[in-house]
Amino acid sequence: MKGFFITMEGTDGSGKTTQIELLARYLDEKGIKNLVTREPGGTRIGDRIREILLEKEYTEMRGETEVLLYAASRAQHVAQVILPALKEGYTVLCDRFVDASIAYQGEGRGIDADRIVGINEIATMGLKPHLTILLDIDPRTGLKRKRNKQNRDRMEKEEIEFYDRVRRGYLKLAEREPERIKKVDASRDEAAVHSEIVIIIENLFKRDK
Amino acid sequence: MKGFFITMEGTDGSGKTTQIELLARYLDEKGIKNLVTREPGGTRIGDRIREILLEKEYTEMRGETEVLLYAASRAQHVAQVILPALKEGYTVLCDRFVDASIAYQGEGRGIDADRIVGINEIATMGLKPHLTILLDIDPRTGLKRKRNKQNRDRMEKEEIEFYDRVRRGYLKLAEREPERIKKVDASRDEAAVHSEIVIIIENLFKRDK
Repeated sequence: MKGFFITMEGTDGSGKTTQIELLARYLDEKGIKNLVTREPGGTRIGDRIREILLEKEYTEMRGETEVLLYAASRAQHVAQVILPALKEGYTVLCDRFVDASIAYQGEGRGIDADRIVGINEIATMGLKPHLTILLDIDPRTGLKRKRNKQNRDRMEKEEIEFYDRVRRGYLKLAEREPERIKKVDASRDEAAVHSEIVIIIENLFKRDK
Repeated sequence: MKGFFITMEGTDGSGKTTQIELLARYLDEKGIKNLVTREPGGTRIGDRIREILLEKEYTEMRGETEVLLYAASRAQHVAQVILPALKEGYTVLCDRFVDASIAYQGEGRGIDADRIVGINEIATMGLKPHLTILLDIDPRTGLKRKRNKQNRDRMEKEEIEFYDRVRRGYLKLAEREPERIKKVDASRDEAAVHSEIVIIIENLFKRDK
């Protein structure tokens, strides 16, 4: 494997999408070929699974079903998109990965984290991110940013307590794997967050040269 | 739990659908309330997952994705349909269950059976069938019965060698769990197969009285 696999995590409204775009532009300018992708989705099968996961009407969906559907989407994504790109030397920037399942379905919905890890080992064929940026923010602040968004999907309709648990889940993961997961204060403005991410990325590139 | 959970298994063309209908009619006549259901599907979320699984175009689907999607559909099916019906005293007749995942994705596609079992424990919340009828038939004979079917789905388009492996997988399961899984020679005519199934069902009802 030649490319770096970098994932961006955080609760809704933490600015992942914006920060991934800024990071991709930075890599472009440095001449580092990169691929931006996201979960759930990223393949045509994954996109079909994504539709089911985000369908507003499916309030009866069990947490276990969610875990399995995210993992199914991930299994296609890893095999069809992420691994081939890494092999060709691309730095892959992925919006959410296994950590999201542990934070959202594990801490958020109370499903045993070891089970989630087990299911995802099958889905990812053991692939782990070289680096994970955790955009940490009080969910109240994050959700306010999304307040203007009409037509929120099933996941976005959760209660604030749910997002508090998800945030706690992410922070626990960051404590357990400080080498891989770098926490960034996402309550600041875009440019400040981006600058910190750039420093982290430069350290990764230096370290692994 | 008050009702019996009975599953019907076998390779394509083994006559599961017909035999479930005959069995349901038999139970109706005996005044035993029963529910007929099938996998993948059986719920609105499961039906959406079923569409993805059977889509002819998705030849790129990984075996792991298949396992996870079947399990996701099963997680909804068990919680929303099967467990509630059993609790109300219904005898549930289900067309395929976990054994199908072990035979098709395990033996058929070469995915580790223990992993499939692990994933399905989460999906089923530990629910196991009281009885499984395995309609055993040479896949060549079974597929001939389906030959007239136009527009075969993704699973039905597999090679004969695939179905030979699936059949072998089912037979191994029946050897390992002879108490639960009853093998029935499905090469005979419908009435003969039905009669044998009725004897097996009567024994189950007697045993558990």
